[in-house]
Amino acid sequence: MKATIKDVARLSNVSATTVSLILNGKEIRASEETRARVLQAAKQLGYEPNPIAVALITKKSRTVGLVLPNIGNFFFSELSKLVERELDQQQYALLFGNSMGTAEKGLDYLKLFINKGVDGIIFVRASKSSENYAERFDEIVKSTQVPIVMADRIIENNSASSVTVNQELGGYLATRHLLELGHRRIGCITAEPTLENVISRLDGYRCALAEFGIEFDPELVCSGNFNIATGKTLTPSLLEKGVTAIFAFNDPIAIGAYRACSRRGLRIPEDISIVGYDDIVLSEIPDRPLTTVHQPVELIAKEAVDLLLSLIDAKEKYKKDIILQPKLIVRESTCPPKRK
Amino acid sequence: MKATIKDVARLSNVSATTVSLILNGKEIRASEETRARVLQAAKQLGYEPNPIAVALITKKSRTVGLVLPNIGNFFFSELSKLVERELDQQQYALLFGNSMGTAEKGLDYLKLFINKGVDGIIFVRASKSSENYAERFDEIVKSTQVPIVMADRIIENNSASSVTVNQELGGYLATRHLLELGHRRIGCITAEPTLENVISRLDGYRCALAEFGIEFDPELVCSGNFNIATGKTLTPSLLEKGVTAIFAFNDPIAIGAYRACSRRGLRIPEDISIVGYDDIVLSEIPDRPLTTVHQPVELIAKEAVDLLLSLIDAKEKYKKDIILQPKLIVRESTCPPKRK
Repeated sequence: MKATIKDVARLSNVSATTVSLILNGKEIRASEETRARVLQAAKQLGYEPNPIAVALITKKSRTVGLVLPNIGNFFFSELSKLVERELDQQQYALLFGNSMGTAEKGLDYLKLFINKGVDGIIFVRASKSSENYAERFDEIVKSTQVPIVMADRIIENNSASSVTVNQELGGYLATRHLLELGHRRIGCITAEPTLENVISRLDGYRCALAEFGIEFDPELVCSGNFNIATGKTLTPSLLEKGVTAIFAFNDPIAIGAYRACSRRGLRIPEDISIVGYDDIVLSEIPDRPLTTVHQPVELIAKEAVDLLLSLIDAKEKYKKDIILQPKLIVRESTCPPKRK
Repeated sequence: MKATIKDVARLSNVSATTVSLILNGKEIRASEETRARVLQAAKQLGYEPNPIAVALITKKSRTVGLVLPNIGNFFFSELSKLVERELDQQQYALLFGNSMGTAEKGLDYLKLFINKGVDGIIFVRASKSSENYAERFDEIVKSTQVPIVMADRIIENNSASSVTVNQELGGYLATRHLLELGHRRIGCITAEPTLENVISRLDGYRCALAEFGIEFDPELVCSGNFNIATGKTLTPSLLEKGVTAIFAFNDPIAIGAYRACSRRGLRIPEDISIVGYDDIVLSEIPDRPLTTVHQPVELIAKEAVDLLLSLIDAKEKYKKDIILQPKLIVRESTCPPKRK
């Protein structure tokens, strides 16, 4: 049976609260003799503090809030799991709030977490914007002492720190790969055209096309949502426009494109090449695993947690933006186009 | 621009707090005339209350906590999303805590949520047990006024209400389907053999075998974790034991089994039939979509939320257990075994 704080209190003959405060290095009026007795008792009993129980007693929350846009999106459920693991190692608990893709609910959760007394917040913005989203977000950031770190997606022009991935590079790498294989008509399936991450990936796509002297054709870009249904629905019209390859702006869209192609009897990659984005577990499931842009999700989680904990410990607020690099993972869904 | 509570306050010439209390039907000392004026102003401005902002003002939390075993498991990320949607319709916010599969952290989150003043908690137990898990859980349930509903997985013998699925029936349906196709050596890949849900599915498997007069062979049952890796790792030894079909205890395990089979050049379903469990989005992705046991996840979410909200409104604590039915979804991963 594990020793509890009460056992330590009994052995050292002081209250449980005193034990907790001493073991957590808080300044309290206790003699050196008492302090030594408590530490000795804890050592003797092999006592290990339970971080959440400690939080309850010391009134410091050791709790971080995470605002997510969509817990049903595998990229974000993976990110949450990793953020949680990092925080757990630092003895912090993590509470999630899911904004269900709406900007309003995201801001509401931000306020709710501040109100619940968390020590810091990691914020992933919603896909869609709403009126004065950036201004209202910034107002909250400025009005609270609770540090806020944006992860993966940013809201432009505000005072919160951030950990993001160079999305333009990701878009460039995916497109250059297809161009190098010989593809010239490359369709794009994007989502939420106002989202910074989407705009940047599209910039990377245009940049790679320009490098190969190919004119950008807006007809080949269509947009929906970040899900399988979008890939299924939008692929047929691109096929009719004669594309030989599709760049899907996330892996679920790519999976939807697979299904639309195989319904029409098209083989991947012999008839159509497909590149995805994110590199979540889905990408390895098809018989022809997906070539995709890997987002360093473990690193995003680790850097966001490290940055947030530094901000929590900092005496003054500061802003820091960390930008990480994506890389292309070539699997089996891409090959040169068929000769005409 | 949406009307805010301040706009209503200005128009009706009372404080924002008074507006909030009146619109939320709280008993306060306000004349009928004031009440009417506020309601009229709200109507005139088309004001819709923001549930979280209301919570902050009324000091009622309108917040529910959800303790999950593993947010990275698609079944649970889907369940969370649906629980959130149900609660949102009832103007409740949802906070998640992820116990990362450990019993201890699950209990810690339970205490943390109670301490943070949520109105109720939906609890999904961890896969693994720990010392006196059931007793300690029950102690927390009994010592708090905050209602707790267990969802999907139960802890036996305790005072919390629950919403679960008949897992024995699920195991039975999967196995009977394979038996009816003519399979006689059916391997099982399970997880966490002490988990009630696993024990029940296995009971269903045995029961179907008995119905067909086939002796249970413990050699054909192996166990790992609820993930793709387990399916990949444990499938080869079952194949060596001459099984013609595999019953995987969740869809990710089934997907792992697909990959292990295709690595050995075995076709699904011609060479090996596979049945999964859960019916999450993964099951539709393979070229031969997965035959699987559908868990009514939308209904679990809806029933758990309805039950919890009834308990929150109830004058006295009570216990109620709701059991839902699974059903078999036959897709393309099963067929009769090859003739010898």
